[in-house]
Parts: sequence; C-alpha cells; structure tokens
Amino acid sequence: MVHTDDALGGDDLRAANLRRLLNPTSIAFVGGRTIAGAVQRCRDFGFSGDVWLVNPTHAEIDGIRCRSSIADLPYAPDAVFIAVPAAQAIGVVRDLAERGARGAVVYASGFSEVGSQGAALQAMLLDAAGSMAILGPNCYGFLNGLNGSALWPVAHGAARVDEGVAVITQSGNLAYNLSMITRTVPFAYLVSVGNQATVSVARLIDAFLDNPKVRAIGVHIEGLTDVHAFSAAATRALVRGVPIVALKSGVSKLGAQLALSHTSSLAGSDVLYEALFKRLGIIRVKDPVGLVETLKLLSIGGIPKNGKLAALATSGGDAGLVADLAEAHGIALPPVNAQGRASLQRLLPAYANIANPLDFTTTPWGSPEAMRVCCDALLSDMPGAAAMILDYPKESTGERPSCKIAADAFADSVRRHGITGAIISVFPDLMPPEHAARMAEAGIAPLQGLAEGVAAIGAAMWYGQQRKRIVDADALSDLHVLRAGRSTGTSRLYDEWDSKRMLAEYGLTVPVGELVAPTDAPAAGQRLGFPVCAKVVSEQLPHKTEAGAVALRLYSQQAVAEAVERMIQSVACYAPDVKVERILVEKMAAAPLLELIVGVKREEDFGLALVLGSGGVLVELIGDTTTLLLPVREDNVRSALLNLKVGPLLTGYRGSSSADLNAAVRNIMAIARFAEAHADKLAELDVNPLLVLKDGAVAVDALVRLDG
Amino acid sequence: MVHTDDALGGDDLRAANLRRLLNPTSIAFVGGRTIAGAVQRCRDFGFSGDVWLVNPTHAEIDGIRCRSSIADLPYAPDAVFIAVPAAQAIGVVRDLAERGARGAVVYASGFSEVGSQGAALQAMLLDAAGSMAILGPNCYGFLNGLNGSALWPVAHGAARVDEGVAVITQSGNLAYNLSMITRTVPFAYLVSVGNQATVSVARLIDAFLDNPKVRAIGVHIEGLTDVHAFSAAATRALVRGVPIVALKSGVSKLGAQLALSHTSSLAGSDVLYEALFKRLGIIRVKDPVGLVETLKLLSIGGIPKNGKLAALATSGGDAGLVADLAEAHGIALPPVNAQGRASLQRLLPAYANIANPLDFTTTPWGSPEAMRVCCDALLSDMPGAAAMILDYPKESTGERPSCKIAADAFADSVRRHGITGAIISVFPDLMPPEHAARMAEAGIAPLQGLAEGVAAIGAAMWYGQQRKRIVDADALSDLHVLRAGRSTGTSRLYDEWDSKRMLAEYGLTVPVGELVAPTDAPAAGQRLGFPVCAKVVSEQLPHKTEAGAVALRLYSQQAVAEAVERMIQSVACYAPDVKVERILVEKMAAAPLLELIVGVKREEDFGLALVLGSGGVLVELIGDTTTLLLPVREDNVRSALLNLKVGPLLTGYRGSSSADLNAAVRNIMAIARFAEAHADKLAELDVNPLLVLKDGAVAVDALVRLDG
Repeated sequence: MVHTDDALGGDDLRAANLRRLLNPTSIAFVGGRTIAGAVQRCRDFGFSGDVWLVNPTHAEIDGIRCRSSIADLPYAPDAVFIAVPAAQAIGVVRDLAERGARGAVVYASGFSEVGSQGAALQAMLLDAAGSMAILGPNCYGFLNGLNGSALWPVAHGAARVDEGVAVITQSGNLAYNLSMITRTVPFAYLVSVGNQATVSVARLIDAFLDNPKVRAIGVHIEGLTDVHAFSAAATRALVRGVPIVALKSGVSKLGAQLALSHTSSLAGSDVLYEALFKRLGIIRVKDPVGLVETLKLLSIGGIPKNGKLAALATSGGDAGLVADLAEAHGIALPPVNAQGRASLQRLLPAYANIANPLDFTTTPWGSPEAMRVCCDALLSDMPGAAAMILDYPKESTGERPSCKIAADAFADSVRRHGITGAIISVFPDLMPPEHAARMAEAGIAPLQGLAEGVAAIGAAMWYGQQRKRIVDADALSDLHVLRAGRSTGTSRLYDEWDSKRMLAEYGLTVPVGELVAPTDAPAAGQRLGFPVCAKVVSEQLPHKTEAGAVALRLYSQQAVAEAVERMIQSVACYAPDVKVERILVEKMAAAPLLELIVGVKREEDFGLALVLGSGGVLVELIGDTTTLLLPVREDNVRSALLNLKVGPLLTGYRGSSSADLNAAVRNIMAIARFAEAHADKLAELDVNPLLVLKDGAVAVDALVRLDG
Repeated sequence: MVHTDDALGGDDLRAANLRRLLNPTSIAFVGGRTIAGAVQRCRDFGFSGDVWLVNPTHAEIDGIRCRSSIADLPYAPDAVFIAVPAAQAIGVVRDLAERGARGAVVYASGFSEVGSQGAALQAMLLDAAGSMAILGPNCYGFLNGLNGSALWPVAHGAARVDEGVAVITQSGNLAYNLSMITRTVPFAYLVSVGNQATVSVARLIDAFLDNPKVRAIGVHIEGLTDVHAFSAAATRALVRGVPIVALKSGVSKLGAQLALSHTSSLAGSDVLYEALFKRLGIIRVKDPVGLVETLKLLSIGGIPKNGKLAALATSGGDAGLVADLAEAHGIALPPVNAQGRASLQRLLPAYANIANPLDFTTTPWGSPEAMRVCCDALLSDMPGAAAMILDYPKESTGERPSCKIAADAFADSVRRHGITGAIISVFPDLMPPEHAARMAEAGIAPLQGLAEGVAAIGAAMWYGQQRKRIVDADALSDLHVLRAGRSTGTSRLYDEWDSKRMLAEYGLTVPVGELVAPTDAPAAGQRLGFPVCAKVVSEQLPHKTEAGAVALRLYSQQAVAEAVERMIQSVACYAPDVKVERILVEKMAAAPLLELIVGVKREEDFGLALVLGSGGVLVELIGDTTTLLLPVREDNVRSALLNLKVGPLLTGYRGSSSADLNAAVRNIMAIARFAEAHADKLAELDVNPLLVLKDGAVAVDALVRLDG
C-alpha cells in the first residue's frame, strides 16, 4: 500500500517523504554481510530510533538479527538503505512502497549511468517507488549529523552537531572524503546524490531550507539536471538568508567533456553557470578545500554585515600577506581609527606599525588585558568581519597558553562587537583540532590556511552585499530564470528594417530613417538631412557589410545615388539571387564615445542569455563581454556595463566626456523586454553596434530571428 | 685575532665564513637561562660537534656547564648564537672576532629596524665583526637539518634530512611556523635573515649553491636589499639548475606600505619584481603553503622534463577538478595514446571513461597488477609529470592497504618511466604523515591539497621550460640587471628631431623628414612627397599635441603653409615664451595595423625597465602593458609582444593581415640598445607610438631625456 496523506498533493507528498527520509526515526538496511556493519555504525553515531537489517537467507549476520523480508518489519520504516544489485533493488523498492516506507537510498550502480539498458532499469525503479523518495541510485546515501542517522555503505568519520552545514555532492568519493576530514566543519547533512533519478540537488536544497539548523548549504556539481528547479530553490534560500556555496567542475574544456561523460548533467557553457550563480547570490569556489572553509565561516561566523575586515597578526610577515590577499579578494582594510590608534600607541612599542592588518608585536603576547586592547582597538570601528592570524606551535614549545590567551581575547572582542569572527592559521596543519573546536564553540570560525581563510571572508562578504543589492532592488522573490522555447527547426530572420521597428516598439532608439525603392533613396536622403547612410534591406542578406551593401557618410543626393548604384553592383556579385528592391536611408549617428554589442541567445535550460560587450576588433581580442540571464533588472544591466573593461568610459575616463550610461541601460532594457516578451520563440537577436553617445544611445544595426 | 686565510680575499673570506657558520662543527651559545635550552636542543637534533654555553656569572645553568667568556672556550667556534641585548652583543662580537670565530647569529632586536639610534648600533656591530659572518641582527638564526645544528632561540619541530630545500625568510615568525608544520618538507636549511646587515638573501643563495644537497631554494621577502647581488646569485642558481621559489609580499598598495615600514627593503613596484623573477626563472607563489608545496615537489619529485601531465584519480569528481585546475595553470593533459587506451579497455568496465585525467573506477582497487596497468597506460606516453589523486581515509575504514597498493604501483611506474611524480590528497589533512614519508622516500612528492598540488606542478613545469628557453637562447650566464645611473638632478630633454636621430643611429626606423625653418616647410613637403605631417620642434615643447603643434595628413604646399601658420598661432597661445623656429616635415606613415608604446624608465636598483604596451585609449583602459628589465634579448621582446592582449594582431587575427612582428622586435631592440648604451645617464625615453605596419614599423614620435 502506497503511503498517502490526505492533506498532501503529489509533489508535496514527495517533499514530505524526502524530509522524512533525511530525518528518519526508523531505518532499515537491506542486503548481506557488506551492509550489516551499517546497523552498528548507525548506533555508534548515536541514532536513537529503530534500526533493522533485512536479509532473506540469514537469521543473523555478525550478531545482528535479520528480518526475512520487508513484510517482516514491525512497521513501515522512514528510511531504507538498499544494498542489493540493481535488478533486485527494484523489487525491494516495490515491496517498500507497498509497505508504506517513506524513502530509500539505492546504493547500486548499473542504472542510467551505464547506458540505455540501465536507463530502462532506472525507469522501472521509479515506477516501483511511486511517491517514495528515492535517493540515487548509484550513490553513497547520506549522513545526518543532527540525529545520528547514517544511511551510508562504509565507515565514516563524521561527528554529531547541533547545527551546521548541509553538503550535497554528485561525487560519492568527495562525500566520503568530506566525512573523513579533520577541519571542524559542522556537517548537519552530507548527501551523495548519485543519478538524481528523482531527488535532485534542488529538491534537497528545498528540504534543507525547512530546517533552521542548516545555516549554509554546499553544493558540488558537474552540472544541473533542472536549472529552473535549482533556480527556484536557490531563490528560496536567498529569501531565507541561507547562503549556498557551489563547487562546479567542468570549467575547462576537458573538464566539461569529463562531466558530460561522467554524469548525465546538462553541459551548458560555464559562462551560464557563472551568470546563474551570480544572479542568485551563490558563492562560487574553485576547490573542495575552498568549499569547506567557506561553509565553515558562514555556518560558524555568520554573514559579515559589510565589506570591511579588521585583521590582527603575530608578525609583520603575516600582516603583509593578509594585505595582499585581502586586496585580491576585494576586501577593504580600513585604517585604524583615531581612538584605536591612541590606545595602541599607549600599549605598543614606538617602532610598532599601527595599521590594519596589525602586527601586534610580542608586547601584548601572553597578557589577556593587552590582547583585549589590541582587539578592541581594531574592532571598535565595526568592520563586517575580524580575523586573527595565529599558527599554533607544537605543544612542547610551551607557547600554547599564550595562543589561547590571544584567541580568547579575540573571541571575546568579536562577541562584544557582534561581528563575524575567524581565527586563521597560515598553515592548515597548525590549527590543532581541539583549539579549532574551542573557537567554533565560541562562534569564531577556525579557518585553516591563510589563502583559503581570506578567500572565505571575501566570499562571505560578497554574499552579504549581493543579497543586500537584491533586497534593495526589491527582487528577492523574483529571480526565476526565463523559460525559453525549444527550437522548432524553422525560423524567420527579420530584415534590419523590421527588426528595428519591432525593437523600437519596446523602446530601442534607432536612427531616423526611411525604407524606399532604390530610385527614391537620394530624395529620402534630402528629406532626412545629410549626412545619411544607405543600406540594402533584404531578409536574404543578413551580412550586409560583407556584401558591400552598406554606404556610410553620404553628404549629397548625388553621393546617395552613386552609393546605391555601387551597392546594387556589389550585391549582384556577392549574392546574384538577391534582388535589391528596398534601401534603408538613415540619418548618420554622431560619433560615439563607446560602441557596445548586445545579443540575446537561446540557451536551452538556462532560458535566454543577454550578452553585453564592447565592440571593435581590439576589444574583441580582449574578450570584454559579460552574460546575464533573463529576466534582468536595470541595476543588473547598469552594474554589468560598469564592470566591463570599457566601463570607465561610461563614467568619464581621464577627464574625457562620459558616454551616456543611462541611455545605454535604457536601450539594453528595451532589448531585454522585447526578448522576454518573445521568449517562447526568440531564436536569435543581435544589436551590433549600439552606439553610446555623449547624450543618448542609438542602435545602428539590428537583427531578430524568431521561430516560425 | 681576526681569522684570516691567506688564499682568500675579503669577499671570499666572508663567503667562506658564512659557509662555516651555516655548517658548523662547533657551536657556542652566549646568554642566560633563556638560551641554555638551546644547547640541549642542538644535541637532541643530533649535532655531533662541540656545543658550549657562555655566561659570565653562572658556573652552570640547568645542569649545563657555563664558560665564563669567549676567551675561556677551548678553541674558536665555527658558529655562535648571541642571545644578549643589542648593546652587549657588540662586545661579544668583538671578542669573537678577536678569538677567530667564523660567524655568529645576533638574535637581539634594537638595531636598524628601530631607527637611527639602532642603525648606529648596527654599524658598530659590523665594525666589531670584521670578516666574521653575522646573520641578523634581529633574527631567529637557522636550523640545519643536514648536520643537526640549531642556532635557534626557541623550540622547533624540524626533522633531519639527507638532502632537501633551503628556505630563507625575512619573517622570523614564518621560519618558526615552517619548523612546526607536518608536511614532509625536507628542510636542509631554514634561515631567518632579520636585518641582513651583511648576510643578505643573495649571499645565502650563493652559500647554498655550493652544497649539492640543496635541491631547491625558497625565499620569502618583502623586498630586496640589493637587486644586483640577488640577480647574480639567482643566475648562478639557474646555471646549476637549482630552482628558486619566491614568496614576495607587498603586492597590494597596503602590503607595499607595510613592507616599507616593517623592513628597510627597497619598495620598488611589484611589476619590477615580477619582471625580475620571470627573467631569472624564479617561480613565484602567493602564499606560504604554495611555497612549501612547490619546494616539496621540486626537491622530491624533481623538475618535469616537459609541460605534459598524466593524472589518475579514484573518482570522476576528482578527475574533473584536476582537468579544471590543470587548464588554469597552463598544464597540458594529452589524451591517452592508442596503446594505453587498448590496455585500459581490457581492464576497466565498459562504462569507464578512458581519458587523462583517468577516473580508474573501483575495478583495479586493491590489485597491484591492475593498478600497474592503469599507471603504465598513462605514463608510457612520457609526460613531464604524473600525479595520482588519493585521499587516505581513516585507518578504521580498512581501506589503507588498498591505498598503499595504489600508491606503490604509481611510485613504481613513475620510477620505471623516470619522470616527476606526485601523489596529491584533495584535502591536505587526508595525507597521513607516515604515508607521505613513505612516498617521499620513493621519490614521489606527497602534495597536500589539490589546488596547491596542481599549482606546484604547473610552477615546476614553468621553471623547466623557462630554463630551457634561456639555455636555448644561450643566455644562461648573462642575466645580470643593468646598472643605471642615479639622477644627477639636472637633465636635458632632447627634442623630437634630436631624439629620433639619436635612436635612428641604433637602428630605430623613423619617417623620412626634414628639419626646416617655418617658411621652408611647404617646399620640404614637396621634396618629400605628399601627404606629409608637420610638427613644431622645440625642447621647450615636449607636449606638442596639447600645444596644437602637430598637423597631420597635409596634401599640398598650401596645406603645409596654412598648417604652419595655424601651429605658430596655437603655440603663441599655449606657450608664449616658445619661439617657433624649426618645423619637422615628415612623410606620413601608412595606416598601422597596430600601435605600440615603448618606454624606458629608470628604476633605481632595478636598472632600466623597458615598458611595452598597446596604444590607444580603449586598450589603455585595459592596461595592456608588460615590463622587461634591461638588457633584453630578442626572444624576450618577441614573446613579450606576443603575450600582450593585442598579441594576436601580430600573427594575423581572424584572417586579417598580420602586423610585422619582426619589424616591431627589431625596432624595440634598437631602442633597448640605445638605452643600454646610455644606461649611466638615461633619465627617460618614450617612443609613442611605434606604428606596426603590414610591412615594417615606424616610430612617429620619440623623446629622450639624459642626465646633463
């Protein structure tokens, strides 16, 4: 009998089942000798509910009593770890579903990851599961550090916690290694997702957001299976203020190929992931160590209230390194304020350099009171975060009591000032676990490795500021990714005239112009006022410049007539089939201060991507483009433009006039609105160039392709 | 009596004394109770020579017999650790010099680092020392892991080694922490240099190069005290093939300020250090962990013979991360060759992805023979380096024997193929020290942390390739930095005509032109052939464009005459004192494919810096410049140009014509030769722009300033 709950619909029921799977009060393991140890490991981890072992052929294994079948269980379990081969797992899942179990981990491989035969098995598995939550198949399961449940096939090294981080990974091996590290990371959940047959990364994020004990979420992915679901879940996380940290591999070409072959994830250009993460305030890290150190800071130290850091170090060497690393991560290190300076001058020797980061010299070493003065001097300025750089020497040196005094004074000052605090060892191995645990209990994140520690602080500050920007824009609940149409195979390319008219309806500024017969072009030029440009308009001629079908800076009727004649001849050579019937005559735009290119691309699951960049061959060499996913807000476009390498031209560079930023933003928003309104059939859109003038901006060429 | 050696001159004698200080056969410690423990620590470290404690007031301290004075020692010690306050240290050094001691560490602070009074003390100290080698003052001394000498004020955690790395640091605290880390770094020497009163980083490098047991040298500096000496020492290291790894702080503005106040090092823009390091094949790292991991690889694994890496991992997740990180560090991961592919296909399951990096799946796990097949399949292609990604789970998992099998098979394959090998744990803490030591003994570098490990491999490959480039250019012994003159306070700015003539003598291509009186300009234009340009030439008018003293694209005598008239009027407004007496009329250059700027700047101790960049406002925004120190070789200039962001224009971009790279290089070399020939008095040199055409290059403006 399938479990039902009258109050819940299908999706809600699945979500409720998943929550129960992740937080079970009863667990069954199904399998032979290899999984029997898991029963004891669950008890060792302190799980207090019922734990059963199901095996049809043994009465007991390694002293553990076996139930002969699912039916033989006293009642339907919340969570079941199924450690039997793929083909048998389907029957077990069917039995469980009938019995009313809430969810199961399917450990076996041999499903969709091995090809079409496996995919068929996976479909049967899902069919058997009904509304049960199935984690995997082809996964390690999960560890729950909150209630001690360990649906896990092998030994682990995780510890129990009261609250902490949830990590979701596509790599069982990474999950395994994460469970083994000795870095004081409070793992509330550690989940290996395997094939994500139904329980995707997005569903897990949703499940964790229901639990206030989850203070940050880590995600390791090679790709996403459902961008929209992920984006919706990440939006909810942002609303709740639960930061997500993502480690996504497949950045390199080779890495992307490996990801494609290793999982059935969407490939998708890394640029799209980058845009998605930024839009959703998702912190991106580059390696597993960065993942855990950043999560540690967020879950233990919290989210910095501003982008300023106060740093204290035991040496000038460390202080110098902190300064360099902080700058590299965009962290501000404001100078010590007057009051702080005065109190440090009273305390420290005359040769001490009173600065932030502060080398506090050996003078306060070992004195709680002097260390307090040092810390307070820097923290009273209310930075967003404070860090003490401290490597613990070996016990035998006798220095550890003084280290403790320094760390305690720091922790106390951080607590009194109510800010985010971290203690950072330059060398990861010079942070003894017992001291790290002590700091963590005091709410100070023990970060291991100076580079990783400063990077984590920079990332946490970015999250706080990015969330604030989104809150300020009142856009916290509106970060969904547009659903784009799928290519229908046929599409219509609109000519320049039609493209411009369609875009102009949405607010794009285009030059004043007339579409006329070739013989009327000189008179049109006269009506518009010289100088003008003239272009051949034809849907069969998208590449006008190459066809010699563009003439610029025409100053007289005669010049227009000659140019039209030349263009007709040129097109006759380049594209003999094209009949030149219409000429677009436009007033020449003024010389721009800046040329932009604006394009919209259909990117399958990522919807529509708006690509902004600077134009011209030199800048093209430099790759000065940025990608935003639609829909966009004005503030996104503005900040994207300012962050282009040519951004300074929009605010006046070296005393030169500034290009009209507002007009550029307005025009790009018009393009975005058009794209959003045609999301279901937009195949391609290019405005190249969008000229940005001292006053205003104008799109001198445009091309739209819609599915037909 | 000062020690002398008839065969040695002053400098050689000091070098010999330094070598003896660093490798002593007898040691004295001078001081009270705080240093008495050092005697025992020396013995504990296994030092087999005589060790004495000198104290004038105690017969013994903590059971260690005291000698009452230097004179009371049985014979002159090789090395003395002086742990008395600054003022007293001078007398001790004088006594030691008289007794004939070879060298001493002066631990006390209170010398030049605290201001002028301390500087006076430091001068007295040096005077007292004569030819003795003095390490410090204001330093921790050194640890010698080769012979067990520890001239060190506090406890340390270093281990004895047969060979390894020498680390030189300006930070006593870093030296202390380095001695404490548990990362299997074979420290042959660990030296804290303090104030570098006489024993500089350069002298230490020289001393270590005499010792074949030093396989790599690490340097942590905030700045250099003598660029020429450092450059000479680093050149010798490059000749010997002993890599230097540098961690230089003060990259950021704040970091540079801290460095300036913390040490008396030369500030110098970080760009100059970057140029110096690159020129000398010095690997640059960004943090202390990077320093030790890179040194570990170089000293244990050696220098990769090429830039190709073969990588094996226990999971697809790790393989993906390796691919991403390798690309970021410029490391090639060539595909598995046909033979390797065939043997892997026989071994691995059908769904395995045969690639480099290889996820070898669980199939070969635990089997020495299968692991051998996997390793050989990738290594038989003779990459420069091979890496196995392996995290050791906790002992209790029972997995460690299989880890050992995998690691041993890898080590054996590496040995048989004679390449550089590393075993890398994704998490630094998942490499147990005993396994790391075992790998190190087998010649496999145990690298801790995936990001750091891959970065170290990239750095070591860069070193090998950079050294090869220098060897190929036959320039191994000729990397000295030019000695530039110091500003004399007065200098002469040469006008465009004179500047161009002087540079043309060295081979710079300048436009054909004539220097004529204003009234002769039209005729000169006629003689040269139109179009021409005309410019006012005056030493008082270096900024011609701003003064309206340049007229381009003149197509007739009348146009020249009018332009000259306009320029005269304009100059009369802009600079009323300047009398327009000479006009430079030049043939207009053809439209360039690329504009470069070429400048030479006097940079104090770094000599002359050649700055190459692309011109134009957009590219200026992007900061597309590179700095080379003089002298330069043609291959340096060529590769610097190609590495500019506009570099692709020099080799043809998107089917467009390529600008004449050879001509650009020839002209830049002409500028460099001129600068080198005038190094003693060159104050400023600018060629802006140097136009690079389809055929040829031409300097259309030039300015030289020489000390007068």
